[in-house]
Amino acid sequence: MQAFNDLADFGNDELADLLTLAGRLERQPEPDALRGKVLSLLFLSPSLRTLASFQAAMTRLGGGSFVISPDMSIHGLESRPGIVMDGSAAEHIREAVPVIASYGDAIGIRAFAERKDLESDMAETEFAALTELIDTPYINMESAMNHPCQNLADWKTLDDLGIPANGGKFVLSWAYHPKALPLAVPASTLYMAARRGMDVTVLRPDGFGLPTPLMDKARDAAEAAGGSVRESEDRHEAMEGAHVIYAKSWSATDCYGDRLGDQALRKELVDWCVDDPWFDDAQEDCRFMHCLPVRRGVVVADRVLDGPRSVVIQEARNRMLAQMAVLHRMLGTPA
Amino acid sequence: MQAFNDLADFGNDELADLLTLAGRLERQPEPDALRGKVLSLLFLSPSLRTLASFQAAMTRLGGGSFVISPDMSIHGLESRPGIVMDGSAAEHIREAVPVIASYGDAIGIRAFAERKDLESDMAETEFAALTELIDTPYINMESAMNHPCQNLADWKTLDDLGIPANGGKFVLSWAYHPKALPLAVPASTLYMAARRGMDVTVLRPDGFGLPTPLMDKARDAAEAAGGSVRESEDRHEAMEGAHVIYAKSWSATDCYGDRLGDQALRKELVDWCVDDPWFDDAQEDCRFMHCLPVRRGVVVADRVLDGPRSVVIQEARNRMLAQMAVLHRMLGTPA
Amino acid sequence: MQAFNDLADFGNDELADLLTLAGRLERQPEPDALRGKVLSLLFLSPSLRTLASFQAAMTRLGGGSFVISPDMSIHGLESRPGIVMDGSAAEHIREAVPVIASYGDAIGIRAFAERKDLESDMAETEFAALTELIDTPYINMESAMNHPCQNLADWKTLDDLGIPANGGKFVLSWAYHPKALPLAVPASTLYMAARRGMDVTVLRPDGFGLPTPLMDKARDAAEAAGGSVRESEDRHEAMEGAHVIYAKSWSATDCYGDRLGDQALRKELVDWCVDDPWFDDAQEDCRFMHCLPVRRGVVVADRVLDGPRSVVIQEARNRMLAQMAVLHRMLGTPA
Repeated sequence: MQAFNDLADFGNDELADLLTLAGRLERQPEPDALRGKVLSLLFLSPSLRTLASFQAAMTRLGGGSFVISPDMSIHGLESRPGIVMDGSAAEHIREAVPVIASYGDAIGIRAFAERKDLESDMAETEFAALTELIDTPYINMESAMNHPCQNLADWKTLDDLGIPANGGKFVLSWAYHPKALPLAVPASTLYMAARRGMDVTVLRPDGFGLPTPLMDKARDAAEAAGGSVRESEDRHEAMEGAHVIYAKSWSATDCYGDRLGDQALRKELVDWCVDDPWFDDAQEDCRFMHCLPVRRGVVVADRVLDGPRSVVIQEARNRMLAQMAVLHRMLGTPA
Repeated sequence: MQAFNDLADFGNDELADLLTLAGRLERQPEPDALRGKVLSLLFLSPSLRTLASFQAAMTRLGGGSFVISPDMSIHGLESRPGIVMDGSAAEHIREAVPVIASYGDAIGIRAFAERKDLESDMAETEFAALTELIDTPYINMESAMNHPCQNLADWKTLDDLGIPANGGKFVLSWAYHPKALPLAVPASTLYMAARRGMDVTVLRPDGFGLPTPLMDKARDAAEAAGGSVRESEDRHEAMEGAHVIYAKSWSATDCYGDRLGDQALRKELVDWCVDDPWFDDAQEDCRFMHCLPVRRGVVVADRVLDGPRSVVIQEARNRMLAQMAVLHRMLGTPA
Repeated sequence: MQAFNDLADFGNDELADLLTLAGRLERQPEPDALRGKVLSLLFLSPSLRTLASFQAAMTRLGGGSFVISPDMSIHGLESRPGIVMDGSAAEHIREAVPVIASYGDAIGIRAFAERKDLESDMAETEFAALTELIDTPYINMESAMNHPCQNLADWKTLDDLGIPANGGKFVLSWAYHPKALPLAVPASTLYMAARRGMDVTVLRPDGFGLPTPLMDKARDAAEAAGGSVRESEDRHEAMEGAHVIYAKSWSATDCYGDRLGDQALRKELVDWCVDDPWFDDAQEDCRFMHCLPVRRGVVVADRVLDGPRSVVIQEARNRMLAQMAVLHRMLGTPA
């Protein structure tokens, strides 16, 4: 495997293999699988789960990793092309990224969306500029539109919980948050649930509909997998019969990159906080999912997050297991 | 072993086993003992020895670790219960701690005392709130009142030096420091020396007597082990015949949580800096111990710290060996 | 090997052995060579390549490492001798360094020059004060005048590229940089190229000649190895027939420690930026080397750095391989 960037790059058998392998590694440790192998971890955006789970994953497989982040005790990194570097930055990513990659057998890179221009972010301009600099295999640890490790982990969580693929009802719901957040998680989660063959409803207020190309990509995947994708602004209708609600805040597509416009749209939407009444018409054991970090009392009420519906810790633990499977296939000796 | 929190939780045979194992691992490396095992390290308070020695310990046993600290490139962590998180913190410890724990086979947690309310700190309210969030085995890397890794390391140091248990005279002395410091080290060191069966004198100025429950706990342990515990304000009397002086500054119990009151008490006490004359009536080879970090010229004179009495580096190295023993018993395959 | 501090400390056969071993480890991994061994890494100055490559090196050899830097979540470190520590620093390097060293089988230390006094820096006063505190083997990760890991890596790069030793023409060129930079890389690179037996030209503007003792040391090494060392201010003459130009900015020797004097000297020298015309009379395939980080458009033009002459990424990757050889000889079991 040369890149783990987007579930859409993989066939059904490949995804099934990764999920099976993640489950096997959960039950049967393989502390020699990646003996002496090194994963470079480059964080151009902050992290907790990804930072911890990748280090743990490599250790469990017998290898190791190192972390580089501009916040650490290193000089500043410049990313603008063609610039004369007579300011404070002492190194350009054109050197830093290939150097960091050269010490690893693979590299994980995290770089959140710039969120200035939707087309540029949809085209993954920034992330592509980084991966073009390297020859080693790479893992997308969250870019403008992708978060494949989260997606694979969530797929495993849905499987672990026995939530139906075809016939399973998955509600991806926008939630309130004081700040505009990137599209990577909602975009790639929508695709994951559709690809799994579920009946997906994107529940969101006016102005927060996901960009059309993302909806189309998910609809195509759902169609091929026996599922469906639709949108709704009506909480009651959307939640009827739901097996799972996946909450996530994201920026308003209608004013992408326009911070004040986005604030004006969201300021009336503080009631988009998932709470017990949301589940009135859902399946009895409807689950609550979130990729974390989550703001308590803002995105979700404490009683939901602390109650039996919540599977957020399982999702987070499955990050490690899903990544172990990816690393095993990327760096391990073929059987 | 499910928790390593307080030496008082362990029987004599268990402590003896840990000390024996620490000595064996010093002489006979076991680089396969914890192959593929992961220790999560969560630092909610700063660290140098603990940070370094736990990472080294896991590597020496063939496993690995990862470090999470709110100072790192992660979003802020909220710890107040029931709060609506619409401020700067993006994640609550109620999610962060179980997630971090879920990646490890055990977790080490450091969280210093809040030092607002003595009863709350004595009850380990904050640390208990953290460990209640997790199912995995945990290690106390210093809480409000406990620092068991330091205690086990110091016990090993006393053994290594051949300082008598019964009949050995141990002076735990308050020392000057410009700031009020937590009680974890003096409280748990007092217990350690008493539990080892030594004759312990707590040497401290007026107002700095350790809280009565801590003194009582130590007296009970000393009694059971053939030792004794007493207090003194008189340096000459306390040091007579001493085998070891363990210096440490701590906050004034009489005005706990009252920074100005504490400052008023300590400002006259700058002469509580351990220096050569302190040893006039001690054993010829009386040792100087300190858990580090130590302020030179403030807590102890350079000539003592740099002289032959000082065993502070040995204590620090024994941190790693003691922790290796704990990790081995916690995570290793039973023989 | 007790110390890796300066290539001058090693015989020709020892250097050849390290280079051969680095090449072998590149082709044949040895993930068991340093099983359970620990490298302590102490960064008193910032780092990217060194930080990453040493961690990767230890993992590839089956051991591990930990990193301590005063920027991390630790209390401040005091380095002045004899001081009364009643300020903000909570720990002195006299304790911190031996403690950190005590957890490793070897320690790597980085401490850039103070650049106040040339004689003190030439005598490595500060670095020697650190290494005197420890008994364990140590690696110089860049001090005032030495950077032996960079030198060994560059030597390997020259070998890998088939650049002649005797008869090979090596130009060490000063380059513009907005700030005065340390002498460690130019001083030790000059020695490396001379020791390899190359014909070395130090190309630099007036006022930036390297200190006489460094030139003399290099001349002696060149003489013994069949090479030569000379200086020039004339770019065209210096580059004639060159096999490689190694660019690096450094502070003005004539006003060492005098920041304003240095600025006055360098402000007219912005044209010392390596660009295509520099190569007019060089060997057709003359290479561009730099230790990184490098400022684009300041030290070197983008078209040189991005073109086929540039071998800066290979140099950086060879850091890891050279360090693996050093660690193997320092910590491995003798054959």
